[in-house]
Amino acid sequence: MRVILPAGTTETGLIDGISAAGAAPELMEHTPSADAEIIAYGAPTMAPVTPVSPNGCPTPAAVTRAVREVVGFDVSVVDAGLAQPTGAPTVDLGVDPGADIREAAAVPDAAAIFDRAHAFGASLPDDEIAIGETVPGGTTTALGLLTALGEPGTVSSSLPRNPLERKRAVVDDALAASDLAAGDCDGRPLAAIRAVGDPVQATVAGIAAGALESGIDVTLGGGTQMVAVAAALRHYGVSEPLSIATTSFVADEQGDQLGEICYRLNCELTVTDPGFEEREHVSMERYCAGEAKEGVAMGGALSLVPDGEMGAVLDRFEAVCDRLGIDAGGEDGDDGNEGSDGDDTSDSNGGGGRP
Amino acid sequence: MRVILPAGTTETGLIDGISAAGAAPELMEHTPSADAEIIAYGAPTMAPVTPVSPNGCPTPAAVTRAVREVVGFDVSVVDAGLAQPTGAPTVDLGVDPGADIREAAAVPDAAAIFDRAHAFGASLPDDEIAIGETVPGGTTTALGLLTALGEPGTVSSSLPRNPLERKRAVVDDALAASDLAAGDCDGRPLAAIRAVGDPVQATVAGIAAGALESGIDVTLGGGTQMVAVAAALRHYGVSEPLSIATTSFVADEQGDQLGEICYRLNCELTVTDPGFEEREHVSMERYCAGEAKEGVAMGGALSLVPDGEMGAVLDRFEAVCDRLGIDAGGEDGDDGNEGSDGDDTSDSNGGGGRP
Repeated sequence: MRVILPAGTTETGLIDGISAAGAAPELMEHTPSADAEIIAYGAPTMAPVTPVSPNGCPTPAAVTRAVREVVGFDVSVVDAGLAQPTGAPTVDLGVDPGADIREAAAVPDAAAIFDRAHAFGASLPDDEIAIGETVPGGTTTALGLLTALGEPGTVSSSLPRNPLERKRAVVDDALAASDLAAGDCDGRPLAAIRAVGDPVQATVAGIAAGALESGIDVTLGGGTQMVAVAAALRHYGVSEPLSIATTSFVADEQGDQLGEICYRLNCELTVTDPGFEEREHVSMERYCAGEAKEGVAMGGALSLVPDGEMGAVLDRFEAVCDRLGIDAGGEDGDDGNEGSDGDDTSDSNGGGGRP
Repeated sequence: MRVILPAGTTETGLIDGISAAGAAPELMEHTPSADAEIIAYGAPTMAPVTPVSPNGCPTPAAVTRAVREVVGFDVSVVDAGLAQPTGAPTVDLGVDPGADIREAAAVPDAAAIFDRAHAFGASLPDDEIAIGETVPGGTTTALGLLTALGEPGTVSSSLPRNPLERKRAVVDDALAASDLAAGDCDGRPLAAIRAVGDPVQATVAGIAAGALESGIDVTLGGGTQMVAVAAALRHYGVSEPLSIATTSFVADEQGDQLGEICYRLNCELTVTDPGFEEREHVSMERYCAGEAKEGVAMGGALSLVPDGEMGAVLDRFEAVCDRLGIDAGGEDGDDGNEGSDGDDTSDSNGGGGRP
């Protein structure tokens, strides 16, 4: 099994009020680069930041890395629009960062990105792959994509209180800036991504379509962002079986809606509960409180854990947190920003692991 | 253990008479990109060629991959001047392909490459790394580097008859073009690489120096090209312990000279014999006949094989060859070019596995 991780950035992630509060924009731009390093090396190497929320919740990359250290899957990070350097090896598909979706074109070369990603996906010799993502602001662009396609789905949040109305307002502005109404891109997913999506969507969709065409089994490892990509694939005419593997944290937040849209999109849904409530560790408590929830292929990675091995994953997650300078009791060692699934304000946070 | 693989190209590799005969230059430029894919995925993915010599000897990448499939080490490929795209993930250090060493400057920004590679090497969280290389024409630029430094070493060849005089003539021209005599760069290894080396040397040396400074154990996985890099490191003032791990094929060709220069450079030398003579497989026969010998971290990878596991590596090597379309009896399936350690003509070849 290989996990493919397209990693990118957008100007959308920098929009005031939907970006991760507590982190300056110039730090948040480093999140996907740091996530890639955590997956590749076990800790940030050249990135100047460890992505940790203001409440001390570490990036889902730490969970994915913990699973990798137990299960041992291969990883290929794809540069899907990184804005900052990374010490991790990345596949270069010539993808630039995305613009603000409230501009006329969020991803001007969405179709070309899809084509190059398609060729990459089709070239892989693997029998099965899981594709994840890390892109700050990604649930807002996911809402943009779903809305432009006319799909009824909603999107998740990396914080307990989902600022969905704020996201909807941004998406409304974005559609208006592209002279589109909801549903206008029905059947034209690359036009939807070009107008109101992000380059990571074009990359994930292209890799998935190419891999499926080559007979590779594809799991989309993620939550509502992957629902949006799955919708794009169905609108593109991809009819092969598709799976989505996410975490219980997303499933708990989304309730019946998640299963309904997966059913509508003819996607098999796998939900994995890592059992974080069994441990008294601040990072796991944050996830149980609804922070982060998913991202950086976390759900896809968790779905690979064999029966009886989850305890070993939790042990390893504690070790990774320790390596990242996150104390089990709630002190973390870095003024980092929150996980890549996080395009929300944190002004609604209760509690707080940091002084 | 992590294997770091700087992969690059130079115009030197295209010099008539020292480049791999039987492969058009535009194909040889793909060799490092294909090698990276073989290491990452087990077979070429987006590269249009499988690097195989005209005699049917597969690139050493196939051996390194076989070891990886048995031993399971991590790999980080570094783009050290790739001229063609690769589907493998690569670390981007902003390195351009090298010029012809007979121009005034072979690697104009050698010092900057070294600095960036140093930062990358210093950032790694590993306890120990092995560093390999893949760069066509690499033994000629190694001879250039050794000569400019005033080191007495000679260089290996990927073919049974080493066209050393031809390489010396190229290096003489190269030194003249840079207004240098042999030994003029004593103590100035980056000036030597700039004048008559290649960008892979600057990258390997920088990563090694940075890693050693961070307390990481460093093995240079390769033959005479790594001797040249070790010499550069000693001339730079690096005094930490350094190991070179190469194959018995290089050691057999070089005789006492190899041990002598390693002793002179205060480098521990590990030679691993994979026991290819035990199998009747054309690829292994080619190696036993003196083809390829080393490259793409082959010696470094072989040094990681635990006692009793070499038989499993040979089995896996046969499987990798099969995957690459190389028949055990001597038919290969691709008009590829030879391994990355090969900057020789093949007009001296006897035998021939292809019609």
